[in-house]
Amino acid sequence: MTKIGVVGGGQLARMMIPAAINLGIDLQVFAEAEQSPASMATTLVGDFRDTSEVVNFSQNLDVLTFDHEHVPTEVLREVENTGVPVFPSADALTLTHNKIVMRERLEELGAPQPRWTVISEQTDRESALAEVGGFPCVAKKPVGGYDGKGVRVVESWSEIEDWLAEGSLLLEEKVPFTRELALLSARRPGGEWLSWTPVETRQKNGVCSEVIAPAPDLDPSTISQSTELAGAIAEGIGIVGVLAVEVFQLPDGSLVVNELAMRPHNSGHVFTELSQTSQFEQHLRAVADLPLGATDLLQPRGVMVNLFGGIKTDSKARAWTLAPEAKIHDYGKSPRPGRKVGHVVVVGADAESLLARAEEVRQAISASS
Amino acid sequence: MTKIGVVGGGQLARMMIPAAINLGIDLQVFAEAEQSPASMATTLVGDFRDTSEVVNFSQNLDVLTFDHEHVPTEVLREVENTGVPVFPSADALTLTHNKIVMRERLEELGAPQPRWTVISEQTDRESALAEVGGFPCVAKKPVGGYDGKGVRVVESWSEIEDWLAEGSLLLEEKVPFTRELALLSARRPGGEWLSWTPVETRQKNGVCSEVIAPAPDLDPSTISQSTELAGAIAEGIGIVGVLAVEVFQLPDGSLVVNELAMRPHNSGHVFTELSQTSQFEQHLRAVADLPLGATDLLQPRGVMVNLFGGIKTDSKARAWTLAPEAKIHDYGKSPRPGRKVGHVVVVGADAESLLARAEEVRQAISASS
Repeated sequence: MTKIGVVGGGQLARMMIPAAINLGIDLQVFAEAEQSPASMATTLVGDFRDTSEVVNFSQNLDVLTFDHEHVPTEVLREVENTGVPVFPSADALTLTHNKIVMRERLEELGAPQPRWTVISEQTDRESALAEVGGFPCVAKKPVGGYDGKGVRVVESWSEIEDWLAEGSLLLEEKVPFTRELALLSARRPGGEWLSWTPVETRQKNGVCSEVIAPAPDLDPSTISQSTELAGAIAEGIGIVGVLAVEVFQLPDGSLVVNELAMRPHNSGHVFTELSQTSQFEQHLRAVADLPLGATDLLQPRGVMVNLFGGIKTDSKARAWTLAPEAKIHDYGKSPRPGRKVGHVVVVGADAESLLARAEEVRQAISASS
Repeated sequence: MTKIGVVGGGQLARMMIPAAINLGIDLQVFAEAEQSPASMATTLVGDFRDTSEVVNFSQNLDVLTFDHEHVPTEVLREVENTGVPVFPSADALTLTHNKIVMRERLEELGAPQPRWTVISEQTDRESALAEVGGFPCVAKKPVGGYDGKGVRVVESWSEIEDWLAEGSLLLEEKVPFTRELALLSARRPGGEWLSWTPVETRQKNGVCSEVIAPAPDLDPSTISQSTELAGAIAEGIGIVGVLAVEVFQLPDGSLVVNELAMRPHNSGHVFTELSQTSQFEQHLRAVADLPLGATDLLQPRGVMVNLFGGIKTDSKARAWTLAPEAKIHDYGKSPRPGRKVGHVVVVGADAESLLARAEEVRQAISASS
């Protein structure tokens, strides 16, 4: 039986469990704590920054993969040195460790991006600002940000003096986007690559709140541009596994890359119900070097909404009375304000009514929205 | 978090794991061995015939349910006596422990059945034979049979003298059925009941080999007859959880009951991909007394084929190259001639092409067919 190890015991590792159970894959999770969303598959608890612990965990595996992108490159290289494949590779993951490195690499690949520059306390501010089109622009800490953390839309220098005192920042053009899309795809070691339909992601407070799949009103040129862009990035960085390319769509319909994630991604959760193959199954197939699954849709449209803060006790019964078709995913996490604790998917024909339906369920069960 | 215990570590318990992971249910399996298809969720290994072990296992649970129907009634009653709900109940399960008791109960409920009688070495053979319409007829051992074991089509007494020497037998009319259907449904403690579309099951050597959902050429009267029959049985026996009613369809279109199973059933595996709600999710929702999930189909048609004997090493890659859309379920069982080790589901529009597709996959991966 193929043995796949996953570093990290969060909800992404948790959602790999159903795929592993179906495929007959032996999934082993290296978690940070005994109690985690993925505890059913946890075989070792430890610190993912400790080289010897991660190397030790990976010794009986056919391949090592991840629930998050925070494992240090030097730890991954040590695992690779022992002969155990690591997917995505240490090389690929460096891009997600540092947003400046990612912008440089995307530029080399010729991918469309917002205008960007790097700024530090030593940089000439006026010329840097001119490069990104002036205020308002977007400042990003190069490392450690996620879910809107480490990102600020700024109108004046005073808003980022504190960050500049800490080190260099990425400064980006604030593009006048009409909406945000996510392009999900997966790639095998030999190059086989397959995408899902582009989805529209809607954020609240910098965090993904809703996803509509396929993105409404997709014209053929957006679809072909999406496929070309995601495919070129996947091939260019040599990703193995699921890749999420978050893009802004501009008023003229063109796309520019916002972020990359090299793992199953919140924007792809809708495909568990909507597509022939979920992103979790696809990720396991890809890293195990098995042929990719068909990504055709089972219904015309799907909507996902995230659940934040907590899931109210005994609220599922009420939610399912309202919407017996709603698929509630409960990550088994303890409540905390703003924390992603689950999501809901509904599939059907019409985006607006699905959104309304999913929102009704969210209101019924979410401790905060 | 709701805690559901499952007695038995077979593939049905295994396939409850994905549903439990999604729903946020704490699933705990009491298995017969350390290594079993459900070992990821196994929290205790023991003997399900041992009252104290099963009572001990069930003490922290919200509800106890099953992967198989072999737990002795007296063991279940002891668990019920401690206040832990057992679903399906000991009362309901007695019907599946003895086929004669099942026939008697179905007769009380007025369900259409083949003509039947009980025969022992003391019975007048000629009158018994007349009751079931003469040879050929069907002889069944009242206890312990499954997958065609304990069932013989007989043309003369000499073929069952060995069984008669062991005890009473159920003797049934060999009905001239045109096909076999299975009626899957689920019921909550309070009576909420929901069925899936009737499926056609095709047997080879007395074992289910293929399932087509919905059964082809279903006319409205078959659908309404199916719903009425399955609903009356579910209500009549007070089942909680998934109920499978296996029926013969006669040349005039009418249905007679062949067997009952009070748990997720091989004939319902197709709904994992085909329906909004899988039978495993529905079973957990029903026994946890949560509202039932919608049973609408996501595609017009689905086909399931069983995998027997074993899964050839490295054969999945070949199968998925042939059919990227095929959902292969590998139960993680060691190979043995004739053993059910997995199944394949494909969904789409046309039953014949789906059957051909699924058969192609089966040929590619099954160690024996």
